[in-house]
Amino acid sequence: MKIAILGGTGNEGFGLGFRWAAVGHEIVIGSRLNEKGAAAAARMRELVPEGNIEGTDNLSATEAAELVVLSVPYEAQAATLETVLPALDGKLLVTVVAPTGEKKSRVRLLPSGLSAAEEAQKQLGDVTRVVAAFQNIGAHHLLDPDHPMDCDVLVCGDKGVDKKIAIQLCQDAGMRGINSGALQNARAVEGMTSVLVAINIIHKVKSAGIRISGL
Amino acid sequence: MKIAILGGTGNEGFGLGFRWAAVGHEIVIGSRLNEKGAAAAARMRELVPEGNIEGTDNLSATEAAELVVLSVPYEAQAATLETVLPALDGKLLVTVVAPTGEKKSRVRLLPSGLSAAEEAQKQLGDVTRVVAAFQNIGAHHLLDPDHPMDCDVLVCGDKGVDKKIAIQLCQDAGMRGINSGALQNARAVEGMTSVLVAINIIHKVKSAGIRISGL
Repeated sequence: MKIAILGGTGNEGFGLGFRWAAVGHEIVIGSRLNEKGAAAAARMRELVPEGNIEGTDNLSATEAAELVVLSVPYEAQAATLETVLPALDGKLLVTVVAPTGEKKSRVRLLPSGLSAAEEAQKQLGDVTRVVAAFQNIGAHHLLDPDHPMDCDVLVCGDKGVDKKIAIQLCQDAGMRGINSGALQNARAVEGMTSVLVAINIIHKVKSAGIRISGL
Repeated sequence: MKIAILGGTGNEGFGLGFRWAAVGHEIVIGSRLNEKGAAAAARMRELVPEGNIEGTDNLSATEAAELVVLSVPYEAQAATLETVLPALDGKLLVTVVAPTGEKKSRVRLLPSGLSAAEEAQKQLGDVTRVVAAFQNIGAHHLLDPDHPMDCDVLVCGDKGVDKKIAIQLCQDAGMRGINSGALQNARAVEGMTSVLVAINIIHKVKSAGIRISGL
């Protein structure tokens, strides 16, 4: 699949792209600036020489791809989506965005009362569907393909068929994706990112993660 | 320790009380009605004949105990706390309350924008401290002491010393309690209850739980 990663120069987007490139997906790294996207792609090609990897600006990346991953800080979410809106129509958007507050270890609720994923869905309208995934994974070990990711990915969305695609992407990145219900449930899942930051700080670890038991 | 369980006639409160009684804690089951509390205590004594177990109304239970566990439906939280307010002063309140919406599989945000635990803290003022714990555990296996609980308990509160006590109570009930940061973080943890309900329904299981990896 040809996957655009908006904000693919950041740690999490880059790490996911790296893992997807290594299993054969075509990756287009998007950035605000064409040059930055291209530079990140060059870096990724060094890590995955056999990979099919390009880099460009966010809009061109979106135009080129079948599926779009949103991996920007929450503060840049609305503006980034605005930029790529014309090219998104009908494509699936997988958002990894998790808003954190000034204190990253404290759950932040958005003034809208919605999750960032629901805000994205609202902005995009009905034509583009949004799935939330990868909110709670640490970028830490993504670049080490031999490191087993000791966490599950909670996948929230309103259509089962979209979540199936996202769950396949989890598997392709070496993680178990779990259908976790409606997009609305991203409100809790996004918040868990701050809970995990708190656990990391309190317990002096670097990559606390969530596992779902009982399945 | 002498523990009052307000709403101890319900499945989760009763199950926790049963496990605590079995390891030697004194249990006072509270209910709206004295008779119901007494009847639940009689039931628990049959299960733990050596246990020190009483049952009464919520106010008397609170008066008698050193530590108070709040285990009522969210809808009854404020009224229950109002009833026991005079007897709570200075005691630690461990709340297991997790608000769920009409659709239990969808995360419910309260109109206040706070967690139920923060609302309780607000209502009680500074004298009584609130810790949130046990939001995400299923009552399912609590009554089978030989059944290992395959989940962790996320413990949120603003004072480490209070969370230490709650974490000990997790251990006494056969679970690992994890200091998960400020009481504010209960906003995400309470929401995860609905996410787990969704996972149970979608995956046709009965007791999906959360484990924290990487510790």
